[in-house]
Amino acid sequence: MKKILVLGAGLSCSTLIRNLLENSTKHSWKVRVGDISEETAKKKIGAHKNGEAFSFDVFNQEQRCNEIKAADIVVSMLPASMHHMIADSCLNHKKNMVTASYVSDEIKNKDEEARKKGILILNEIGVDPGIDHMSAMAVIDRVKESGGELTAFRSNTGGLVAPKSDNNPWNYKFTWNPRNVVVAGQGSAAQIIVNSTYKYIPYHKLFQRIERTEIKNYGEFEVYMNRNSLKYRQSYGLEDIPTMIRGTMRRPGFCKAWDVFVQLGATDDTYTLENSENMTYRDFINTFTKYEEGKNLEEKVRKYLNIHEESIVMYKLRWLDIFKDKKIGLKNATPAQILQKILKEKWTLGKDEKDMIAMQHKFEYNLEGKNKRITSSLVVEGEDDIHTAMSITVGMPVAIAVKLILTGKIKETGVHIPVKKTIYKPILKELEEYGIKFIEDKETLA
Amino acid sequence: MKKILVLGAGLSCSTLIRNLLENSTKHSWKVRVGDISEETAKKKIGAHKNGEAFSFDVFNQEQRCNEIKAADIVVSMLPASMHHMIADSCLNHKKNMVTASYVSDEIKNKDEEARKKGILILNEIGVDPGIDHMSAMAVIDRVKESGGELTAFRSNTGGLVAPKSDNNPWNYKFTWNPRNVVVAGQGSAAQIIVNSTYKYIPYHKLFQRIERTEIKNYGEFEVYMNRNSLKYRQSYGLEDIPTMIRGTMRRPGFCKAWDVFVQLGATDDTYTLENSENMTYRDFINTFTKYEEGKNLEEKVRKYLNIHEESIVMYKLRWLDIFKDKKIGLKNATPAQILQKILKEKWTLGKDEKDMIAMQHKFEYNLEGKNKRITSSLVVEGEDDIHTAMSITVGMPVAIAVKLILTGKIKETGVHIPVKKTIYKPILKELEEYGIKFIEDKETLA
Repeated sequence: MKKILVLGAGLSCSTLIRNLLENSTKHSWKVRVGDISEETAKKKIGAHKNGEAFSFDVFNQEQRCNEIKAADIVVSMLPASMHHMIADSCLNHKKNMVTASYVSDEIKNKDEEARKKGILILNEIGVDPGIDHMSAMAVIDRVKESGGELTAFRSNTGGLVAPKSDNNPWNYKFTWNPRNVVVAGQGSAAQIIVNSTYKYIPYHKLFQRIERTEIKNYGEFEVYMNRNSLKYRQSYGLEDIPTMIRGTMRRPGFCKAWDVFVQLGATDDTYTLENSENMTYRDFINTFTKYEEGKNLEEKVRKYLNIHEESIVMYKLRWLDIFKDKKIGLKNATPAQILQKILKEKWTLGKDEKDMIAMQHKFEYNLEGKNKRITSSLVVEGEDDIHTAMSITVGMPVAIAVKLILTGKIKETGVHIPVKKTIYKPILKELEEYGIKFIEDKETLA
Repeated sequence: MKKILVLGAGLSCSTLIRNLLENSTKHSWKVRVGDISEETAKKKIGAHKNGEAFSFDVFNQEQRCNEIKAADIVVSMLPASMHHMIADSCLNHKKNMVTASYVSDEIKNKDEEARKKGILILNEIGVDPGIDHMSAMAVIDRVKESGGELTAFRSNTGGLVAPKSDNNPWNYKFTWNPRNVVVAGQGSAAQIIVNSTYKYIPYHKLFQRIERTEIKNYGEFEVYMNRNSLKYRQSYGLEDIPTMIRGTMRRPGFCKAWDVFVQLGATDDTYTLENSENMTYRDFINTFTKYEEGKNLEEKVRKYLNIHEESIVMYKLRWLDIFKDKKIGLKNATPAQILQKILKEKWTLGKDEKDMIAMQHKFEYNLEGKNKRITSSLVVEGEDDIHTAMSITVGMPVAIAVKLILTGKIKETGVHIPVKKTIYKPILKELEEYGIKFIEDKETLA
């Protein structure tokens, strides 16, 4: 029996582990799942005879070495900062390794060593990053092979709520780490290139400079720019492309309302508020407005940010209870932490509600003197609150990659992200069989 | 002869060294000035018989120890990060020390040791910090002693251009470190308290939420908030004051125009622009605007930031040449570095031009049931391009403090900033004799 070692059994691992176990009898696999909480690992395994759960501490070097030594392949679903420790042990014991996280410079630097030892460290093989790379490269390679020249590439992804569960005025619920949603876009300016002109968008303009798009059967979405749209030009072989934009999808109207929090300063995570524990939601919002004797808060916010009284933005804000006298109850909290608490009360996915992953690429290219466009769209809805769209789209590419490596269908060595045809082609094929399939539209532009 | 050791002989030291030398014969002082450049130190000394210039390297421990050992008092005018090394040597050799910089935590922690050894480390004895502390404490103590209760304190300072040299549409020129002007206000939100309500102002709103004030004979100014207005509540004994605001003064219209750069993202210092060397000023501004086929840049900026075509803001912007096709010529530059270069070409004080320091405190207090206000204002104009207002107002309080310590008029020990009456009173008195004098206005409020 081949041994698959899965390290980390958090929310995003449900579908990954289920799929590995489902295939385990046919392929004669043992699936050993370690998590800091043995309980969490056990839950994911259930009663499956090929599953083993154990308590795993990444900082216990002996355990780490022994487990990895005994495995045939290692899947690290631990927090991103821990992968390099796993990678070191995998290199020591010559084991292939798979992660869904962004490849760090630390891991990138192990490429030569991995090649020499004949092992593969495959990173960014979840959804975003992961499915985005593979589905984009499939079209990019196809266009290039047909003799086309790419002139523009837009790539957008959103973790959203499925239409059936979409029942609030923001058309949004948390389906992933809420903290990342609250601080999204902070730091340096977003960088894009449009018709060969670099454009830099500071955080306080990010949710105002949005684009719009549509997915068949799912209607309209809006898109705000990701921090760095440019860094994939090289990995995708698009060094000279005149237009490249990567963004995050939300439902129409979200960005305009979210921008209120950005403008107020309520998403700031760099300082703590005096006496936050005893403040109310209303005090919290008031702290970002001017002191004006006798004016009511809603009026001050509207005037300050130029929002019309009947605007749907005010409706969205009121619905969050931010103008209510509810106690915050968080000590020494940053604005971002307080906002996250307020939002969690309203944006949490209910027990029977489903999430949705939407992804869309738009490729513009010139072929035989004609300008053409391919629009490639994917929507995946969750099965339930365990096998969410997030868990499915992160877990399935990982599970398929593990199978293809174990069965010798993927033979690469070194440190990789899935932009090579030898890697993305067989994985995309199996994803399609599983129902994770992009729909393509082709147009010739005027 | 007593030996005064001055370490650092940069721009801000001209008046300090001149004053020490002027007093040296009367008091029988030797003034030894060390700078990393002996040339710089020599220039400041001139031909004065009581002056000695030498090349000083703060990282040469032997030299540092020998020089400090041989001195009677040490004035550190080095970059702020170097003071703690000087302080350590001063403690070792039991020498008093004076600096014009903000007291660091590292130096604060030496308070007990300094007390035990009977020496004084006096910090923040320049203009801001320095004259601001002393002049504020003089009024605060007086109001308290008269039985008044302070209800509001506003304290504003500006390094500006003197009216006679004020000949550009911004009514502003660099009179101090240009870099600090370009990045002013970045980082965490500005924090103020207004009628017992904490208010936090994010950077992208800082230059929109300004106050206005007036100084007799000098006209109107506008004020944007400093990063942290609250930290001096404790040092000033104003823990419970309902309103406290510290700000920076500019001439009317400056903030609205400066806000254009903030909104564009042109003051960002956290990333570098691709190909900055070959960009023009016009390209630089364009990089922060939307891509819009066939629209001219000025029109895009106006539309993006909602500026009227005939607005004085556009006049200010045009005057800076930011819409011109001039080459930037800086490699791998951040937006802030490029903006600084553009501004330096226009905002540099000419050879015969004079700068100006403006400072104003407003104290509101309740005395015997009546609400009163004291407005205390200071304006100092520079003598020339060497003895600038900046050099005078930084140097004179330092020079006076040195004299008062050497002559035993200031007897404190420990680590201090000048908020104690025993320190500020004799220094303010001598500053007045030198012409650095606050004008007070008293009003009873309705």
